[in-house]
Amino acid sequence: MAFKLTDYEAYDFANRRHIGPSPSEMAEMLKVIGFETLDALIDATVPTSIRQKEPLRWGGALTEKDTLHHMRQVASKNKILTSLIGQGYYGTTTPPVILRNILENPAWYTAYTPYQPEISQGRLEALLNFQTMVSNLTGLEVANASLLDEATAAAEAMTMAKRASKTKANVFFVDENCHPQNIAVIETRAEPLGIEIKIGAPEDLDPSEVFGAIFQYPGTYGHVRDFSDLIASLHEHKALGIVIADPLSLALLKAPGEMGADIAVGSTQRFGVPLGYGGPHAAYMACRDDYKRSMPGRIIGVTIDSQGRKAYRLALQTREQHIRREKANSNVCTAQALLAVIASMYAVYHGPSGIKAIAQYVHRRTVRLADGLEKLGFKVEPDVFFDTITVEVGALQGVIMNAAVANGINLRKVGTSKIGISLDEQTRPEIVEAVWKSFGGDLEYGADEYAREEDIAYRLPQANLRESDYLTHPIFHLNRAEAEITRYMRRLADRDLALDRAMIPLGSCTMKLNATIEMIPVTWPEFANLHPFVPEDQALGYREMIDDLNHKLCLVTGYDAISQQPNSGAQGEYAGLITIRNYQKANGQGHRNICLIPTSAHGTNPASAQMVGWKVVPIKSADNGDIDLDDFRAKAEQYSDQLAACMITYPSTHGVFEETVQDVCAITHQHGGQVYIDGANMNAMVGLSRPGDIGGDVSHLNLHKTFCIPHGGGGPGMGPIGVKSHLAPYLPGHPERDATIGPVSAAPFGSPSILPVSWAYCLLMGGAGLTQATKVAILNANYIAVSLKGAYDILYASKTGRVAHECILDTRPLNETCHVTVDDIAKRLMDNGFHAPTMSWPVAGTLMVEPTESEPKAELDRFIASMLDIRREAQDIEDGKIDKDNNPLKNAPHTVRDLVGEWDRPYSRKQGCFPAGAFEMDKYWPPVNRVDNAYGDRNLVCTCPPVDAYEDEAAE
Amino acid sequence: MAFKLTDYEAYDFANRRHIGPSPSEMAEMLKVIGFETLDALIDATVPTSIRQKEPLRWGGALTEKDTLHHMRQVASKNKILTSLIGQGYYGTTTPPVILRNILENPAWYTAYTPYQPEISQGRLEALLNFQTMVSNLTGLEVANASLLDEATAAAEAMTMAKRASKTKANVFFVDENCHPQNIAVIETRAEPLGIEIKIGAPEDLDPSEVFGAIFQYPGTYGHVRDFSDLIASLHEHKALGIVIADPLSLALLKAPGEMGADIAVGSTQRFGVPLGYGGPHAAYMACRDDYKRSMPGRIIGVTIDSQGRKAYRLALQTREQHIRREKANSNVCTAQALLAVIASMYAVYHGPSGIKAIAQYVHRRTVRLADGLEKLGFKVEPDVFFDTITVEVGALQGVIMNAAVANGINLRKVGTSKIGISLDEQTRPEIVEAVWKSFGGDLEYGADEYAREEDIAYRLPQANLRESDYLTHPIFHLNRAEAEITRYMRRLADRDLALDRAMIPLGSCTMKLNATIEMIPVTWPEFANLHPFVPEDQALGYREMIDDLNHKLCLVTGYDAISQQPNSGAQGEYAGLITIRNYQKANGQGHRNICLIPTSAHGTNPASAQMVGWKVVPIKSADNGDIDLDDFRAKAEQYSDQLAACMITYPSTHGVFEETVQDVCAITHQHGGQVYIDGANMNAMVGLSRPGDIGGDVSHLNLHKTFCIPHGGGGPGMGPIGVKSHLAPYLPGHPERDATIGPVSAAPFGSPSILPVSWAYCLLMGGAGLTQATKVAILNANYIAVSLKGAYDILYASKTGRVAHECILDTRPLNETCHVTVDDIAKRLMDNGFHAPTMSWPVAGTLMVEPTESEPKAELDRFIASMLDIRREAQDIEDGKIDKDNNPLKNAPHTVRDLVGEWDRPYSRKQGCFPAGAFEMDKYWPPVNRVDNAYGDRNLVCTCPPVDAYEDEAAE
Repeated sequence: MAFKLTDYEAYDFANRRHIGPSPSEMAEMLKVIGFETLDALIDATVPTSIRQKEPLRWGGALTEKDTLHHMRQVASKNKILTSLIGQGYYGTTTPPVILRNILENPAWYTAYTPYQPEISQGRLEALLNFQTMVSNLTGLEVANASLLDEATAAAEAMTMAKRASKTKANVFFVDENCHPQNIAVIETRAEPLGIEIKIGAPEDLDPSEVFGAIFQYPGTYGHVRDFSDLIASLHEHKALGIVIADPLSLALLKAPGEMGADIAVGSTQRFGVPLGYGGPHAAYMACRDDYKRSMPGRIIGVTIDSQGRKAYRLALQTREQHIRREKANSNVCTAQALLAVIASMYAVYHGPSGIKAIAQYVHRRTVRLADGLEKLGFKVEPDVFFDTITVEVGALQGVIMNAAVANGINLRKVGTSKIGISLDEQTRPEIVEAVWKSFGGDLEYGADEYAREEDIAYRLPQANLRESDYLTHPIFHLNRAEAEITRYMRRLADRDLALDRAMIPLGSCTMKLNATIEMIPVTWPEFANLHPFVPEDQALGYREMIDDLNHKLCLVTGYDAISQQPNSGAQGEYAGLITIRNYQKANGQGHRNICLIPTSAHGTNPASAQMVGWKVVPIKSADNGDIDLDDFRAKAEQYSDQLAACMITYPSTHGVFEETVQDVCAITHQHGGQVYIDGANMNAMVGLSRPGDIGGDVSHLNLHKTFCIPHGGGGPGMGPIGVKSHLAPYLPGHPERDATIGPVSAAPFGSPSILPVSWAYCLLMGGAGLTQATKVAILNANYIAVSLKGAYDILYASKTGRVAHECILDTRPLNETCHVTVDDIAKRLMDNGFHAPTMSWPVAGTLMVEPTESEPKAELDRFIASMLDIRREAQDIEDGKIDKDNNPLKNAPHTVRDLVGEWDRPYSRKQGCFPAGAFEMDKYWPPVNRVDNAYGDRNLVCTCPPVDAYEDEAAE
Repeated sequence: MAFKLTDYEAYDFANRRHIGPSPSEMAEMLKVIGFETLDALIDATVPTSIRQKEPLRWGGALTEKDTLHHMRQVASKNKILTSLIGQGYYGTTTPPVILRNILENPAWYTAYTPYQPEISQGRLEALLNFQTMVSNLTGLEVANASLLDEATAAAEAMTMAKRASKTKANVFFVDENCHPQNIAVIETRAEPLGIEIKIGAPEDLDPSEVFGAIFQYPGTYGHVRDFSDLIASLHEHKALGIVIADPLSLALLKAPGEMGADIAVGSTQRFGVPLGYGGPHAAYMACRDDYKRSMPGRIIGVTIDSQGRKAYRLALQTREQHIRREKANSNVCTAQALLAVIASMYAVYHGPSGIKAIAQYVHRRTVRLADGLEKLGFKVEPDVFFDTITVEVGALQGVIMNAAVANGINLRKVGTSKIGISLDEQTRPEIVEAVWKSFGGDLEYGADEYAREEDIAYRLPQANLRESDYLTHPIFHLNRAEAEITRYMRRLADRDLALDRAMIPLGSCTMKLNATIEMIPVTWPEFANLHPFVPEDQALGYREMIDDLNHKLCLVTGYDAISQQPNSGAQGEYAGLITIRNYQKANGQGHRNICLIPTSAHGTNPASAQMVGWKVVPIKSADNGDIDLDDFRAKAEQYSDQLAACMITYPSTHGVFEETVQDVCAITHQHGGQVYIDGANMNAMVGLSRPGDIGGDVSHLNLHKTFCIPHGGGGPGMGPIGVKSHLAPYLPGHPERDATIGPVSAAPFGSPSILPVSWAYCLLMGGAGLTQATKVAILNANYIAVSLKGAYDILYASKTGRVAHECILDTRPLNETCHVTVDDIAKRLMDNGFHAPTMSWPVAGTLMVEPTESEPKAELDRFIASMLDIRREAQDIEDGKIDKDNNPLKNAPHTVRDLVGEWDRPYSRKQGCFPAGAFEMDKYWPPVNRVDNAYGDRNLVCTCPPVDAYEDEAAE
């Protein structure tokens, strides 16, 4: 069927969805900036030397209708069988009320990481529930608010144990019963750090030679062991015991903490998060209170606000990479916030008795399955188990596995003569019967003595039976009523400010609003319900999507190959550096270990370099904000023999297209180093300039920035890396793919179920549309910069006076003249109904503003009006017209409680609560006053506080 | 596969989702009421004489997982072909951002009809946009906010013309080019009213003999005629001209108003509302300003609030049935609010240029289709058309239609030798090619001169080309940007108070919160994308669902047959009365025309009786609120020969199980009448008592009350009727089903795509669960009644002192003692974060409270606290402690603007804004102060006002 279609169907050309300003608004904005055309502005902004030669093209943009049609066709190439493969991934049902009101609700999925606590109380509470759930189930005092996946969490636990243990030992013991991908990621992570890995059966552990040991519970083949004695002997040698535990099993099994474990990690995927061919899912980590300062990842804590009322915030941030840089506990930045929220709501929704009933259901069905197989004459291992059994089948392995597929079921190949089977909450009796049938049996699930499921006796080890309570906090006791859970989720959502209400102009974070259509395929069963280890012929739709997306990303970046394995930006950095390291080792350059990083770099850069065992040599900035080329050259020469790589960001983190970028790359290459170009700012480049053309050897792309994956309140993200062809053979592999290179993430393709978002974005925009988006992103940033000039200095600009897609407002002078801090401005913007720009990064005391192309002129003008109003308020302080401590800026944000109570302030209620730019009828109200950070860290509480704690003053 | 499953899987038994109070809460509540057990309460409440003999049973309740699994299997029996059948139903794409943020968002779909304007400003604005869109496109001044479907709208237009025309004529002319179902519904409606219908070609019209004429534009076979001259000649004879117009065609075609039409009606389905096998869709009606007081349905108007600021409200309510009863313009009550909101957002989303582009796209593809068919040698009619053509095929009709089905396409059978084809916005080039292929041709869509679609010349009649603008208001110019539309919908949603935030205790309206799972299948393609007139073998899934639901509803009601055709409760009443009338006529009793209706009945009852040509004889209430049995007996005897029916509600609209209901039925039967039992209060009966057992011959069920279809802000609803076997042959038929009885609605099954909600509810609850829901509904109502006793008199109760599922609070004494009106209380409840109970119905000056079973004890207690607090505030007025005109009740609702401004009131801000029961952090703020109803009706504005009108005082 060959017919030509016009490329452009004006009425729903996606450009118009993604690009905020209308053509006439753009003309007005260009006039303000002083350009005739958008292209003239771009030409004056992006240096000719780095412009790409060919326009970005891969055929016309599709309409929304055609995009969905095409994606449906590709999705249908994925075959959805029932996967009983287990190995860390299980069937689960996302409760519909959570699916609709969280996963498919922009109030949740378009929110940013809760760094501004006053406008994030809703998701902070949901994440505190997550920590409480994890802490309860694992029996450990402190939990964080999610990590990327179970395997990376296990690797993080290893390095945490290294930091925390008091032994000199350098060996880490790994139980051979760990899932293969967990072992593989631990090995990848250990090698550059010089940690020696010993793998063996638990009884092979020699506690005297290790700094820590990790066990899987239940084991990958189903064993449920009591590790209490082993952990006790580890403690005798000052080593740490780590347990990877399935949280559902913990509803019936003794908690890791009750076995003495110091750290527990695991995946909460089966708490309502779709399989999604491997991710995104939220991993958890919990530890003893003693070790909390060594823990990576975000921790939510309870504190008070300026009125003494309870409030939530991110606790202990000084552990994190954005502050500690290469000294950080980890490079972890993006978490899996949205998925952690889903998992925590799953626990809220089902409550402890529901969770326990699900665990019983899963276990009893597994018992029934095992009974049947034994009746059929098969040997089932182990004797006691939770949800997983292993069956010895000898030469019949292939026959039975094929029969199962014919019956619609995927089983797990274990060795050459065994088959693994893991059941889950979706295992219906027909499925158990179909398994038996695949083993040649014709049994009836509900026969005879099994008529009542609750009569099926446990086959759990007596020593491991759980006796302690969990989920006792009232929040997990909402009557299991739809009215309660619906309203609870709504209340939490309403406390937060996300993109569905206002611009979030966070510099370097590219908070663009995705088109809803891009979220639609994510929850189609064809993308949502695939186990990551299904036979490849069942995932042809995924393959086609990933191949096509990779092809387009190669065109965008100028690289030759893409790996979609890294499931966050920081993970992408790490993967990129590991790839360089693998390459250099293979070429006899394994001794290279110096990494040049500008001081203005993202904190993740040095933290990632540290993870591959490199030493970071910082490079100064010149006065104009650019990399100091002389310093760079000097350091490159100084370390010429050891130079592994440089890590730079382009356009720079100062929001400028540096003209010297090609020199930096050339110098690095000249000294035998590889060039890592951080892709955080790709939103200023797509269609205009390609990192692969200007000298980069590898870059990561934040698909959750430039390619529209919504931020989810702090994840999921995706950080695929592009590399030049010489590096392609050294990209991360995966044990399920017979690769020789180790993996960096648990699943072969990281978090593939969110890739439809980025793919749809590329299809909808076309190359021309993506290029237009970049241009408008630059336009919007320059419009803000020009409009605020005079009121605020723009800290850095190109020689032509232009900024790239973001600009830094210098607010330090206000601190000098009237003690108005960047914090005051950020909090005051909440009164205007905005999320603050990026604060104090990359330059302390400044604000970095990135509007993105998705904001229309009206919203930019609202922001400009707000910022000018703030400047006027500061002026009043400067002029002595208002008190320097009691003024709208210092008292921000203002809440309804302020309005209701006594008003003894030297400015009006109206000025306080309705500054310029604030909506009147549709005003957003921060739910708490300014949060007290110090109090929270001094009085650390990381689980749900009792209801009567932090008694509400206003309630008296 | 025969296995037994336990009925009850405790962990997600749906009872717990739908039933708010936990078992322990129920025990506490029973203690307050003074009963040991729930059954004891029920026994004391529901008279033994009317209790059903057998418990309600149809097998166990399914879990949420099993329900979805089962529904998926049934849904998959529907075959989704591409339907080009037209006839008022067209393929359309619901923009994903609207799908997710409106149709699938409880903030929209759980809202009530906007009778309380202060907490409904969001949907009122969306519906005003709908009216503006309709008014613009049709070229008529006034539009209403939707009717049930195009066919009933056409019938309503006929009766409206009868009311409005100044002639004595009794003939109504119907263009034979109207869609068959429109003609059939007009005929059904005309007959009982004695209106004579003449059907013919437009040129057959004799303007002198008619009071009105109706034309379809474009016609059902595709003709596009200019009716200007015909309408002018109608006007000469004081008759009205009505045009049924496809709104999409009006983007290119001259508007009905521009042809002189007095009234226009039509369906907005193709503005983004899924086909859904026939509904629900929003029909529209527009008219000249002169006729607005004759218009049926809800009209949104602009007015001001007590502070003089712009506000929206329902206008001209005195036309409606709840006030005018049998003198009302119509019995229309439920509209299609949710679907009207979708259609209006479709226009907001696409804007005028987008709508025009879609119309052009559809037309050009139709031109291309016709070109091809002509090239293949077929005769295409008419010469000029919009989207529909008719092809003469002679004896090949069956062959071609079958070939089309084989190619995945449904065409329309026209007569015995023609085929009709209608294209739509989803018609892809492959589809046109597949049509050609079905006609034996092998053509290429994009061949040669058709490479550029925009070059395809129109085949529209020159005289009908549209020249006027439409959708010029700024709201239709949101840049087509996702950021704008997303935030706009969010802002509107946030202004409203729906079930996702609070209880809506509206007596008689049964505002229960459906479980989200019940909404999931509604938007599955298998339910959403079926044309109502597909061959029945493509709709086997629908058939199975409807049959099973009907079977269960028969068990629930004690009736023998169900018709799912009526698409609202009032429509159900009308259908039930028509069925009685058909039966009586067939049995020589066609002269019977008296209908006995208690004065306490819903206004729809007398209005419906009027529509079948009956005379209403009102029956008084006894002092205890029951039907006055003596009066009833006397009237029945008085009209014995003419008695057609009685219409009663059970339990009574006073919220009591009357013991005399069986006597009423017996008396009616004794005098040859039929008993209509209004099913509005079925939520107090399901599982306990069956209308069919206590004497009913027919009842309607409000599936949007008792059976969980969410209210949608005023629709959709479903009003199926159950009848005893003697009436079954006389149920409504449909022309597409070769029935002898005429239809009452456009589609054979009314609004079938929302039936999955009620079906899922039945599957999830099981008979036992439904019965439990009824009991808890009664428990919740009695708990409120007992808890408020002392503060408010409970107006009616049974001899045992019990209320049914609702209770009437007598607030009239407050009016006497301190001039606090029921209105003041209703508005004050908004400050507490509640939607008011039903006001002044069935007893003026009172509040009727129906909590439903879905509310947990905490929410009931919050309501009780609020009502007691209001009583205390009234006491303060009574005691002279606070001014009788300036107090929290008279000033309610309080807005943020009140707080911000000067506060010169004799009570504190805190008391004003945070009365007992109001959430503190999560406070709901009414967006406007008390709305001025009189101003709005005096200064009627029913389309979007210019942005600078109603200048906001606070903005100065």
